[in-house]
Amino acid sequence: MDEVNFDINNTKFLKNIEYPSDLKKLSLPDLRELSDELRDFLMDTISRVGGHLGSSLGVVELTLALHYVFDTPKDKLIWDVGHQGYIHKILTGRKSLLHTIRQKGGISGFLKRSESEYDAFGAGHATTSLSASLGIATARDFQKKKFKVITIIGDGSMTGGMAYEAMNNIGLLKKDMIVVLNDNKMSIAPNRWTVQNYFTDLMLNESYNRLRNKVWNLTGKIEKKNSDRLRALAAKIEGGLKGVLTPGMLFEALGFRYFGPINGHNVVNLVRTLEEIKNFSGPLLVHVFTEKGKGPSYASKHYQKLHALNPFDKTTGIELKKSTVPAYTTVFGNALVELARKDEKIVAITAAMPDGTGLNIMREKMPDKYFDVGIAEQHAVTFAAGLSTEGFTPVVAIYSTFLQRAFDQIIHDVATQKLSVVFVLDRGGLVGADGPTHHGAFDLSYLRLIPGMVIMAPMDENELRDMLYTATLYKRGPIAMRYPRGNAPGFPKDTFTKLEIGKGEVVREGSDAAILAVGSMVHNSVKAAELLEAKGISAQVVNMRFVKPLDSDMLRIIFDKFDKVITVEENTILGGFGSAVCEFAEQYGFKNDIRIHGLPDKFIEHGKPEELHADLRLDAEGISVVAEEFIKSKKKVS
Amino acid sequence: MDEVNFDINNTKFLKNIEYPSDLKKLSLPDLRELSDELRDFLMDTISRVGGHLGSSLGVVELTLALHYVFDTPKDKLIWDVGHQGYIHKILTGRKSLLHTIRQKGGISGFLKRSESEYDAFGAGHATTSLSASLGIATARDFQKKKFKVITIIGDGSMTGGMAYEAMNNIGLLKKDMIVVLNDNKMSIAPNRWTVQNYFTDLMLNESYNRLRNKVWNLTGKIEKKNSDRLRALAAKIEGGLKGVLTPGMLFEALGFRYFGPINGHNVVNLVRTLEEIKNFSGPLLVHVFTEKGKGPSYASKHYQKLHALNPFDKTTGIELKKSTVPAYTTVFGNALVELARKDEKIVAITAAMPDGTGLNIMREKMPDKYFDVGIAEQHAVTFAAGLSTEGFTPVVAIYSTFLQRAFDQIIHDVATQKLSVVFVLDRGGLVGADGPTHHGAFDLSYLRLIPGMVIMAPMDENELRDMLYTATLYKRGPIAMRYPRGNAPGFPKDTFTKLEIGKGEVVREGSDAAILAVGSMVHNSVKAAELLEAKGISAQVVNMRFVKPLDSDMLRIIFDKFDKVITVEENTILGGFGSAVCEFAEQYGFKNDIRIHGLPDKFIEHGKPEELHADLRLDAEGISVVAEEFIKSKKKVS
Repeated sequence: MDEVNFDINNTKFLKNIEYPSDLKKLSLPDLRELSDELRDFLMDTISRVGGHLGSSLGVVELTLALHYVFDTPKDKLIWDVGHQGYIHKILTGRKSLLHTIRQKGGISGFLKRSESEYDAFGAGHATTSLSASLGIATARDFQKKKFKVITIIGDGSMTGGMAYEAMNNIGLLKKDMIVVLNDNKMSIAPNRWTVQNYFTDLMLNESYNRLRNKVWNLTGKIEKKNSDRLRALAAKIEGGLKGVLTPGMLFEALGFRYFGPINGHNVVNLVRTLEEIKNFSGPLLVHVFTEKGKGPSYASKHYQKLHALNPFDKTTGIELKKSTVPAYTTVFGNALVELARKDEKIVAITAAMPDGTGLNIMREKMPDKYFDVGIAEQHAVTFAAGLSTEGFTPVVAIYSTFLQRAFDQIIHDVATQKLSVVFVLDRGGLVGADGPTHHGAFDLSYLRLIPGMVIMAPMDENELRDMLYTATLYKRGPIAMRYPRGNAPGFPKDTFTKLEIGKGEVVREGSDAAILAVGSMVHNSVKAAELLEAKGISAQVVNMRFVKPLDSDMLRIIFDKFDKVITVEENTILGGFGSAVCEFAEQYGFKNDIRIHGLPDKFIEHGKPEELHADLRLDAEGISVVAEEFIKSKKKVS
Repeated sequence: MDEVNFDINNTKFLKNIEYPSDLKKLSLPDLRELSDELRDFLMDTISRVGGHLGSSLGVVELTLALHYVFDTPKDKLIWDVGHQGYIHKILTGRKSLLHTIRQKGGISGFLKRSESEYDAFGAGHATTSLSASLGIATARDFQKKKFKVITIIGDGSMTGGMAYEAMNNIGLLKKDMIVVLNDNKMSIAPNRWTVQNYFTDLMLNESYNRLRNKVWNLTGKIEKKNSDRLRALAAKIEGGLKGVLTPGMLFEALGFRYFGPINGHNVVNLVRTLEEIKNFSGPLLVHVFTEKGKGPSYASKHYQKLHALNPFDKTTGIELKKSTVPAYTTVFGNALVELARKDEKIVAITAAMPDGTGLNIMREKMPDKYFDVGIAEQHAVTFAAGLSTEGFTPVVAIYSTFLQRAFDQIIHDVATQKLSVVFVLDRGGLVGADGPTHHGAFDLSYLRLIPGMVIMAPMDENELRDMLYTATLYKRGPIAMRYPRGNAPGFPKDTFTKLEIGKGEVVREGSDAAILAVGSMVHNSVKAAELLEAKGISAQVVNMRFVKPLDSDMLRIIFDKFDKVITVEENTILGGFGSAVCEFAEQYGFKNDIRIHGLPDKFIEHGKPEELHADLRLDAEGISVVAEEFIKSKKKVS
């Protein structure tokens, strides 16, 4: 088959596969061929529509083997982080929908219980699968049901504390569970899991190997009768030692039986191993090595780029469309390096997202000041708190949605001690294709309730630079900045200006009503004001900059001048910026009409940000419509 | 010395000890005697004023040894959970203040950076110390400073995922750090750490011991020249095996050097060991066994009661004052058992707090349906989510402040999937003596921003029962109930009534203004209304019951009837119940005067709840004063 011009009708097996039951008709050698077809199909589709390709390419054979051996959906497959689930989707009734993945109205880029009965547990965030699986296995046993529970977790997820909490509990409850450790030694970023490094080190370790050789040499000198027994014994000890000193040792210590390591691209072997162990009791760990991005030759060289992808040329791996303006992420990454070069107390911390946060620039330019802690947001924040006690200025860059993992640490370790930690939240607001598990919909609310927290949102790339600069100079406690995924409106300047904490600015004068906007919504609000102008409505627009502390002087002026005040934010309307403005108005007895506009109190599905903004009336047009309705509405006085 | 009638002036050494420098003058045998004096002093004081006694009694010798060997405060001691820090406080300038511990204006029950330069990092929540220590060690090395970083962490904290995240990163960064694992095999609840069980199992394991014996027997039969080398080799292998297969194995795998186990009550040995290793490089783990509550004979038998204590009789260990009305905790524990006996789908989950949450009753009566997951709130919630996918009704009982650890899991694993998990938050509001790290000051705000979350707060023990019953019947997603620490106003009924979701009730009629109250503030508000009545002001009081969804019918009636509306909650005024009422008013154009009354936007220090309530005007008197001021204030209309 011509892999570059892929046609599913030309496939030998894949064209007939809709559900796992169709797989069972195939022989083991057929599965090998089907693996190739799946890989080509996946590559072909995702190169056109975009998506998380690398991790799914790595688990083609594993996914096939799991559905071949187990009786899904009765048996439950729980995938850690659903973005490795594309093959699973193809094999479970969603082959014809793959081209809609991550698009509005299409299938999700992650697993989703509401999408398919084969999706036993949804996950966009990492390291949740073991806990969920233990819950499912426990419920099964209460009901004396007989199904299997199989968890598939990557080595990257093993850096998260929640995985350890779950393993500990699995060891205590000793449920029948099969955990497949999908070890590709490169999760999203290069591996940060010490246990794995230790294993590799050990195998290369001279004294370990010397010790091993000594046993054999010595036992060779012993009289036959004893030496055989001794050799067997030595092998047993050595085997025990080796069995323990693997990534599996952690699992062994926690009560798992360890199997492996196994080549994860040998589907025949995988099927045999799974068949062999599937009826063993207790917690089992199957250690599988896979290659992320494994596939047609044009894929494997681009594994790092193949994490979250736009459509690309599948012969070169190069993205088809490149933006001409820099992403906020890049503006931040560059600005931080500039600042860190001048201030040696600045250090940068990421939780396994160097590329996604822009800290890859720091890693390259100032590796000594760069820390990737793995998928360990809790540790990231308290590690930063520790650095701060010694006068450092840690900049913790974590996506808005992932920082939820460290909510307690922000409160307990940073804020109660008034430590100066800078939080940089990328992906604040709607992220688009990744959907509800990834939208940064809550940060303004969950940060605002923390005493002493300063919260900023830049309206553009220049304000981002100024806010970052301001944050690194602020030494009175925690300070956070959040901005959206995607491109900044323009090109950044090369200077830094310190901003006054808690001060906004009027960006457009008006006389009929005021629009108070934060961050990503400032530009949209200005454009909305222009649309309103055309309809004869004059709206003033304020870039509030700070969600906490609020600019109370500005608010007084606004409330005195305008009856109608609209707040606009890309955050839930519960407890966020608009809510803060209402609290202020009530506290000081202002009787203005206030309209809180932002994300509704529900989980927002996936789609392009511009589509979602339009649906939610958060684009310029939508804001202008909301504002017009509000301005024309009658004031109700009780 | 007569230990029951303790007089510090009769001590030989303790009377002269103020700071660690005073310790250095003593000999090793002197330290032994000082240990006894410290234990008696601690027991004497805490039996009178109350406090966390057991864990501090366990670390008397360890604390002495640490301050004797290391050069504090230049060297940093980082204690995991500061309630084991009483001896540390005594030895670092706070001996004369010990009797003020946990009382308003007195020293904190935990370590606190603002209290002493010897308190390198504060902690009320568990498992934070390793991350903070790594931050401190990293900052030290950047600055080429020479101090030591010593972390003291208990086995209980080792069940928390954050400890694992930190160990993994310590292994990666290979900093010079000393970690003392204080292993008492009983943290707050019986041990839930598998690794430890595994160690014990192994030492008792027959085949392990048989294997070990075989090596010795066999090597005994070998000719002298070879046998010595072989015996040495076998010992080495066995030693390696044993070194690996201990609780230390986890640390070994993560790059630590393991020392121990050591008797934590032999101060001489502790000093010698610490002296020996203190200049070794890289991460070191010293495994120390201690006995919680170790002390005068009248203490050790009461270790479980000795976690958080009121004053007690030190000869019997019995608390001096017993309440005559049941605590909310007990009402909940009993009610849950009643419900679980009728509904086999109900299961209960605690994160190492069976006694504190009342789930000890479930543990006793229905152990099969009871799960203690260790200090692992994240796992607790996602484990519950897994159970819920199979139709179970998990009741997750976690203190308000500790549930912050699982904020992301509530959103990502429970709420996005609309799974029916019941959250029961004890210690919602001000907890009193434990202070800022333990107040449940934020839950109404952090839960309210979550789409689909139902939030209830009972006004008394009967409503608690009804709400719990309602929650177990609610099958449309997550539902939470929060109530305060301490005693309910009366004795519970023995029936259950299902409540209508989102409906409150008027508990007192009035004509001048409305007080909308939730949970613990309902009774205080009714009493406040009585005080206002005496001043000629007639206040209506509404028990809102639900913070989400709000009772919109009730609110419309209230807003139509009363110009002035006061909201009262034992939660931050940012983003909580009052904020929700404001959002509602703005959304529907009500122009009433609203006053949000609740916890101010700052961390509240420790003190008796009644003292704190009075200070913050949240007792009946305070609410009446706030209401009166507000009602008499002029309305400002813009």
